[in-house]
Order: sequence, then structure tokens, then C-alpha cells
Amino acid sequence: METLLLNSEDVHHNTSMAELIPAIEQAFAAYENGNAKMPAKSYIDLPKYSGDFRSMPAYLDTGEWDAAGIKWVNVHTDNEEQFDLPTVMGTMIYSEPENAFPLSIMDGTELTMQRTGAAAAVATDHLAVEDASSMGIVGAGVQAYTQLEAISEIRDIEEVVVSDLDEARVNEFIDTFSDRFTVRSGTPRDAGHCDVLSTVTPVRSPILGPEDVGEHTHINAMGADAEGKHEIEDDVLLNAKLVIDDHAQCTHSGEINVPWANGVLDDDDLYGEIGQIVVGDRAGRTDDDGVTVFDSTGLAIQDVAAAHVVYEHANERDNGTNFDLLGLA
Amino acid sequence: METLLLNSEDVHHNTSMAELIPAIEQAFAAYENGNAKMPAKSYIDLPKYSGDFRSMPAYLDTGEWDAAGIKWVNVHTDNEEQFDLPTVMGTMIYSEPENAFPLSIMDGTELTMQRTGAAAAVATDHLAVEDASSMGIVGAGVQAYTQLEAISEIRDIEEVVVSDLDEARVNEFIDTFSDRFTVRSGTPRDAGHCDVLSTVTPVRSPILGPEDVGEHTHINAMGADAEGKHEIEDDVLLNAKLVIDDHAQCTHSGEINVPWANGVLDDDDLYGEIGQIVVGDRAGRTDDDGVTVFDSTGLAIQDVAAAHVVYEHANERDNGTNFDLLGLA
Repeated sequence: METLLLNSEDVHHNTSMAELIPAIEQAFAAYENGNAKMPAKSYIDLPKYSGDFRSMPAYLDTGEWDAAGIKWVNVHTDNEEQFDLPTVMGTMIYSEPENAFPLSIMDGTELTMQRTGAAAAVATDHLAVEDASSMGIVGAGVQAYTQLEAISEIRDIEEVVVSDLDEARVNEFIDTFSDRFTVRSGTPRDAGHCDVLSTVTPVRSPILGPEDVGEHTHINAMGADAEGKHEIEDDVLLNAKLVIDDHAQCTHSGEINVPWANGVLDDDDLYGEIGQIVVGDRAGRTDDDGVTVFDSTGLAIQDVAAAHVVYEHANERDNGTNFDLLGLA
Repeated sequence: METLLLNSEDVHHNTSMAELIPAIEQAFAAYENGNAKMPAKSYIDLPKYSGDFRSMPAYLDTGEWDAAGIKWVNVHTDNEEQFDLPTVMGTMIYSEPENAFPLSIMDGTELTMQRTGAAAAVATDHLAVEDASSMGIVGAGVQAYTQLEAISEIRDIEEVVVSDLDEARVNEFIDTFSDRFTVRSGTPRDAGHCDVLSTVTPVRSPILGPEDVGEHTHINAMGADAEGKHEIEDDVLLNAKLVIDDHAQCTHSGEINVPWANGVLDDDDLYGEIGQIVVGDRAGRTDDDGVTVFDSTGLAIQDVAAAHVVYEHANERDNGTNFDLLGLA
């Protein structure tokens, strides 16, 4: 019995969005239904290195399949400048729940991008207008790509507006997608007036106010992942149908963490968790809804569900590298 | 930049006890001095599989070196019978603290045995009589081997008494060590009358009472790692100089967890933590001491320190397998 090693390319090639999106939806449902175990994310803060490590273990049982694993991931803000390394790197250990054998060890960086895109797609599927055909993206970094890949899987996106202060990033994004979509550069407001908007920036001062978003725009607020970060002005959040992924994580480090800490926003302003919508306890978009917002912090169950999809595919295709880590072969 | 994969054999061959024991001692000191970060061990209990997963992240800075990582480890009690797999399997991710690059992924099963042996050696060094020459071992399973390997590194052990209900295990143990020590099979009482005793059993009813241990025996109580497990009768613990590795872990799942829960034993009965002895805040064995006990549950800082030693050695020797997990090479 060997462990299947999957590098970033293997993870990329074995992520089928068409399967990943429903798997992430099943993970949200399992969590909502009490069929998942997800200890709180734990942090090791290392201020002297401007960084931290996070451990994200989880188990989930969808009824059709179950899966367990842990992602070990960091945020080191000086990495690019000092080490020519990504700010965020992840390693995922994917285990057989029944006996705990480490089935696979895979790149958790690519996995994070994929599962984050898929989560936005699940929320968009339930919260965006049915005939959404335009998508805005604010922030053209690595996470932007899987936003479009995933969301175009569940809505017939034709037009894309991408906004970023870094022109090279914008051009790279346009180059990547111009054969499949009509993609143009624009302001945050241009992006915000599309049917669907994903914000994937690390800003600490909001860049989108009430005038910057359309009347029925669904916003995936993906960027905030730490205390003090937020991308969207309080007034937009307070007037929107506001959906979160997890109460503890969102109030601690999600899009709502700043207004929450300031007492501007509380439980009465939250519509519910994505899991409640997925299982049908709460409605998704209705005809009365205007702006909707999904505050996504990223849950360990998403990583485990994504690892499940990637591992099953790679295994079927005989991709990856077998390694006898435990000396049991 | 690639990640160094170290399988069980690589870990075994690159663990030098002569270096591991001081590294573990430095780790205890760093923890005691506030130079380590160790979030609480988190558990995912899966009763339907008679198992659990544990995540053990840590960072430590000894002043000479620092290290970070996480061990993902399980206890699945039906594994041997149902799957012909070990009850406990571990996977360790060892990371560069400064930028979080995953320097190495290694077998955490072998690593656990090695660092557990080394912890017993650190405690024995401070708590056993200086001229200890005999060692007893109760429980001849996989953990027994590194107990003798480690402790014989810091005391001139000549005679060994091994006790186990499973004769085949006893014979295997004797075969392994008979060229280096005078090893014989004996009762728990025979083992307990040696200068040093290590108990490495999973029992839930104590097997060693006051009559079963010598007047100056130092006991390493290594076996208890879950609520309800204990190997040594309350009377032995209450009359001993009782040292623990970590208050939270020992009262939850260490040798003292049962008498602690029953109110038989409390803080007044604890002499202190091993870290306090290592840094010199509290004395080790003095001439007045009789029986001493070290309650070892195993700390994440031990895993990280052990991974540091193994990685440095393997790297120097060009051992292991390089793998471009993150696609950054």
C-alpha cells in the first residue's frame, strides 16, 4: 500500500469543476446536517517572520462517500519579496477515514484555489440571478482564475470585467480567457455592475460602496481571511442578503469581521450560512432580493472534499507518483 | 526548491539518538521558557471506525535553531485485525519557519517511536540514579525498542528485563538486543525492580503496584495516551516524585488521567513538568528521592524537534527522495 503524491500539476489536471462544485455543495450540506467534524482552525503566529501557520483538519460524510484529511497552510506576507516564494503555500494529507492510511499527499496551494472557486460557484448558483451572463472580478491574482472557471460552470457567463491596479496582471488574465469570454479591463465599479462579482483582494479599506454594485449583483467576497481585512463597505453588507460560510470563522476573519468587531453588524444582519441554503432550510435568491453577498473564509471540509475529487480522478487515471512513505508496501 | 520525502527507513537511519535526546531536551526547555508555540492537540473522533485522528502542530525556537511542522496521526484500534495495518500511523510535514516552505514530508510513525524514546531518556537522565545499570520494560511492542535504544544512550545499561504476555514478542525483543545487553524475560515485578522501568502498554487496569517497583526505581510511564488508560496503581504515583510532560495533556489522557478524574490525585501531588527540571527551575533526582515517575503523553514540540534532527541528517547525507510538490522547482 503506497501513498499517492500529487504535485500542483497533478492537482490541477485532476480537478474537474463539474465534479468539484457538487462535492463542495455536499460538504456544506454534511456540515449543516451534523455529518462533518471540523475542529477549529488553529494558528501559529510568527510575527518575527511576518507569517503564520494554520492547521485545518476535517472529516465529512456525505452519505455517498466520506473523507478525512488535514491541510497545513501558511500566510507569510514577505515571501515574494524576500524568498521569491508564494505568500500562501499548502500541503494536504488525505486519509482513508476507516483505517487512517494516508492515501495521498498533495499540493494544497492549487487545491485551495480550486476549492475556493468551487465554493463561490455553489453560492452563486443559489444566490445569483438565473440568467446571469456577466461577471466582474476585482483583484486579478492567482485566486481570480478559479473564480471564473468555477462560476462559468454554473452560469452562462459571456462578458467578464476584470479590475486590478496592476496592469500586467490584468493583461495576463485577459490573455488567459479571451478565447472563451469577452473579457475587458475596467474599474471596480464596472466589475461591480455585472450580474456576479467576485472580490479577491487583500485590502484593509473597502473598495466597493453602494454605488459600485448593481441592483441585483451577487457578490462573492473571497478576499478577507484575517482580522482587519474587508473589501466591501458596511452599507453594502447591511442592505444585502448576507450569507456566510461559518459563523466562527467569518466573525473572526471574514468579510464581516471589521463591522462585526465595531458593533456595526450583528446576527440580525446575517441571513444565514451557505449550508442552510444548500440543504433547503433557507431560500436562496428570491424575486424580492437585490444585492446578495457570500462571505467566504474557506473551510477545512472544502479542502477534504476537494482532495477526495482530485484523489479519485488521479487514481482512475493512474496519475501522480506512488511512494511507500510508511514502509508498508 | 523541492520537498524531501523521507520514508520509514530514511527516518530510522537518520535518527541519531545521541543528537535526538539533546534536541528533545532543548524542545522541553524552549516550551518552558515560552519560546515554543503549541496549539492544543485537536481530535476528530470516529467511533464508527473505532478510531480517531489527531493534529499536532508546533513551532519552537531553541536559540540555536528553530523549527515548525505538524504531525497528523491516528489511533484505530481495529486496524491490525481488519486491515493488517498498524493501529497508529503518522505523517509529518516539516516546514521552514521563516517562509513556510515544506522542507520535508516524513513517516511520522517511526518518528513517534524515536521521539518517545528520546523523551524517556531525557527524563531518565534527570530522574534515575546516576549509576543505573538495569532496565525493565513492560510491554514488548514497537515502542519498547526505542525505550532501550534511547535510555542506554544516557545510562550504562547492562541488564534488561522484558515483560509481556505475548511470548513471541518477548523473544523477538530478546533476539534484537541480546548481542548488546544481557536480556531476559521476566514478570512485571522483575522489570519493576530494575533501576529504570519503562511501561509501554495500553492497559486500562494498572499492572504495577507498590510491591512491584524497587526503592529507587525511575519509571517512565509511556503507555497511557487516552482517557481511561493507566498502567500504575495510584499508591505508587502518590508516593513518587511525579513529573509530567504537559499539564493539559497529562490530566486529559496521560498516566495520571484516571486518578485525576477520580479526585485521588491533584496539583499538590505533582512535582512539576519536565521542562522545569530541564531548565533548572526544579531539581531532578536528589539523594532523598525514592521512586520517581515521568508521565509522558508526547508533545507536538517533540515531533518537530525530532523532524529537525532527521531532516538535517538526511539532507547532509543526500538521503530521501526529492519531490516538486508545489511546482516551484
